[in-house]
Amino acid sequence: MRIVITNDDGIFSDGIYQLAKALQSAGEVIIVAPNTEQSAKGHSITLHRPLRVNKVKFFDTELEAYAVDGTPVDCVKLAVEAILHDRKPDLVVSGINNGPNLGTDVIYSGTVSAAVEAAILDIPAIAVSMATTSIDNYNGAAKFVCKMAKRILQIVEEKSTVFNVNYPTCQEESIQGVKLTTLGIRKYSNSFIERKDPRGNSYYWVSGTAMELEQNEDSDILAINNNYISISPIHFDLTHFKTYQRLKDLKIEF
Amino acid sequence: MRIVITNDDGIFSDGIYQLAKALQSAGEVIIVAPNTEQSAKGHSITLHRPLRVNKVKFFDTELEAYAVDGTPVDCVKLAVEAILHDRKPDLVVSGINNGPNLGTDVIYSGTVSAAVEAAILDIPAIAVSMATTSIDNYNGAAKFVCKMAKRILQIVEEKSTVFNVNYPTCQEESIQGVKLTTLGIRKYSNSFIERKDPRGNSYYWVSGTAMELEQNEDSDILAINNNYISISPIHFDLTHFKTYQRLKDLKIEF
Repeated sequence: MRIVITNDDGIFSDGIYQLAKALQSAGEVIIVAPNTEQSAKGHSITLHRPLRVNKVKFFDTELEAYAVDGTPVDCVKLAVEAILHDRKPDLVVSGINNGPNLGTDVIYSGTVSAAVEAAILDIPAIAVSMATTSIDNYNGAAKFVCKMAKRILQIVEEKSTVFNVNYPTCQEESIQGVKLTTLGIRKYSNSFIERKDPRGNSYYWVSGTAMELEQNEDSDILAINNNYISISPIHFDLTHFKTYQRLKDLKIEF
Repeated sequence: MRIVITNDDGIFSDGIYQLAKALQSAGEVIIVAPNTEQSAKGHSITLHRPLRVNKVKFFDTELEAYAVDGTPVDCVKLAVEAILHDRKPDLVVSGINNGPNLGTDVIYSGTVSAAVEAAILDIPAIAVSMATTSIDNYNGAAKFVCKMAKRILQIVEEKSTVFNVNYPTCQEESIQGVKLTTLGIRKYSNSFIERKDPRGNSYYWVSGTAMELEQNEDSDILAINNNYISISPIHFDLTHFKTYQRLKDLKIEF
């Protein structure tokens, strides 16, 4: 099995290093990741300037690794369609992200969007995030994803399947198990902080506190709150079929 | 009705001007849009630097208008949560984009992502794109969206409803009508062009030609090919419920 690994924290972050080390037991590993942090880049791609790809020494390993001056989605596109060319990967794994990617927030996430891009290119993918930035358990998350990767080709029915994995915020021994989940709802209060520069002009920092909202019983947010590993199957078809069907049934004239 | 208008081509492009002019007959119009082109920014938001907001003169109008040095999604977030504050809009309209936003491509689109952000903030939204860059019929598209805007609050059941409108590539008199559609499939061949700089080092331009793929009968791509205005209801929940249900039924152990 050939596995491409990417992330949005940058190629020299600890999360991707731990992930790459663990995944070597599952197959051939190639790293194609941004050369700088690319958090909250969503599904952004770079249109107006060309991309540079540099082969790099990846920590203490001999792994094939490329640093790209673009977004996580750029990395996956480049890996599959330019760098690897006729060595199409069987799996793309994105992470391990330093912080959660849960519920509504996944749409902003570079980590998750990279995995979604793989699905667009007909390659199964896993995005994996540590739901906390305060406990360093990349190793536990990496081992779990490695186990999952080994079985994924049996699990997926359609190649365009993405799994969004979040690893809980507790110590390894307190983890309650694994839950198959759906994306919960995340909303924020006080989203912007206004400040004044030395000349009295305003500028705005995006900020915000996640609100305590009622969640579906099967939501990823609830699973993580209860110390489960959450796995949400996601896809890239944004069609709202429910509204489509309702308006079709109503024969609405626009 | 209070309407916030944004786009991804930048606040001084013709598409947003025509849109704003037309929508004045539907309600109070406020423009909050990027100060430069922000195509293919997807759902990217700006985390690592603050955002600037400048009140600007909007062409020959007296409309309230703000230029933001961020992405289309930044603009919608800022408009709702900082600039307008207690004047919450009833509708967000994003466009008119200079070029199509059809099928799989909507996930990369700044225009569509801005509308999706409105839905996340519980505000109905319309994204509108000219499916061609070669015919200037912003005026026709603007009038159509204005008619739609006037009725939208009766049409939508959930506030988090987004309509992705594409306006066909033919002359106004050849338009066949309006179709309610689902997002089709877009794939590209030859996605990257490799070039060499004067020092012999490679760089890559994202490029690609849309492939001719078989589409569902109800797809937006087919509707546009047949000179219909296409309207696809979209949403932001990326959960793949079909895979979720299948894996749950199979009682897969991860």
